[in-house]
Amino acid sequence: MDQPLSQAALNRLFHEARTHSAWLDQPVTDETLREAYDLMKMGPTSMNCSPARIVFLRTKEAKERLKPFLMASNADKTMAAPVTAIIAYDLKFYERLSQLFPHYAGAREIFANHSELAQITAMRNGTLQGGYFILAARALGLDCGPMSGFDNAKVDAEFFAGESLKSNFLCNLGYGDPSKLFPRNPRLAFEEACKLL
Amino acid sequence: MDQPLSQAALNRLFHEARTHSAWLDQPVTDETLREAYDLMKMGPTSMNCSPARIVFLRTKEAKERLKPFLMASNADKTMAAPVTAIIAYDLKFYERLSQLFPHYAGAREIFANHSELAQITAMRNGTLQGGYFILAARALGLDCGPMSGFDNAKVDAEFFAGESLKSNFLCNLGYGDPSKLFPRNPRLAFEEACKLL
Repeated sequence: MDQPLSQAALNRLFHEARTHSAWLDQPVTDETLREAYDLMKMGPTSMNCSPARIVFLRTKEAKERLKPFLMASNADKTMAAPVTAIIAYDLKFYERLSQLFPHYAGAREIFANHSELAQITAMRNGTLQGGYFILAARALGLDCGPMSGFDNAKVDAEFFAGESLKSNFLCNLGYGDPSKLFPRNPRLAFEEACKLL
Repeated sequence: MDQPLSQAALNRLFHEARTHSAWLDQPVTDETLREAYDLMKMGPTSMNCSPARIVFLRTKEAKERLKPFLMASNADKTMAAPVTAIIAYDLKFYERLSQLFPHYAGAREIFANHSELAQITAMRNGTLQGGYFILAARALGLDCGPMSGFDNAKVDAEFFAGESLKSNFLCNLGYGDPSKLFPRNPRLAFEEACKLL
């Protein structure tokens, strides 16, 4: 494993990929959503804890349940997107560790009585998986529109009442209309964000 | 953008990529670290806030500063890795928004006096960028060994004293020795982790 991917692949995933708000009239199949999850799930998490959970809103009815809790500027593009994913995490991810990390019998107890550690572990690893999901979707040819402008507590009450799931961010999915993109914002240079020691 | 990447590329990024703990005797160049950052930085963050900061530990001396704060099981593989990245985030990321999100003059003030919002925004988006970094490194042919088993507060005191940076997770980087891998752990099936509404 020491040759880089092709420039075309790097462009698809990073250089030329953009956050989209306007969508072509092209549906996203359930098969593609399953494929994106099946890529995402392979990404690394701490103790393979895999806390991310995803609800895919595909219908107008499902998205109407979300709409009241969106920031105004996120509403139209979300209602127009073929699919909106609620990227969530399960605070009780540790109940799955006997399945996910079977060689270490004490794994559950590390978290079960330590809610602060469980919370940060769920958030960190669930968010890493959210990052993998965005790139997995792009790898399959989808465009993404990730957003954190919404009322997490109200979304949790609407979609996860009585469950241990917490919403993290939203991600619109579809095939973006490149003619509606704004110019790309600048990024920090290596020297502004990194140090070599 | 609607053809998937090649199966070889999907294998490299997801299906066949593994967390490595044993490293071939093959150095990681600074140029490759810069290329990985230059891919990572293109990934989406909320308001382009780009809070991730990375310290690359390349020398024995630099890694000796980290060693006392590692969980015992993470020490040997970290000392043996060609490079260890401290993936951190800047709690004062908002001081860069005039550069990163120049069309919205009020961006800084959304966060500057709201430390809880700044904290969750830094953590969420810095972690997303951490996920992008892992996949960017893999895209360039590197292998990764991400870890969260270390004392964050002590690492912050050692590397970020007097700064607004917080460590998030560590990631060993190099070219992994596939002969030293353990069998892969299971993952949750789509139906265990996802819902279609």
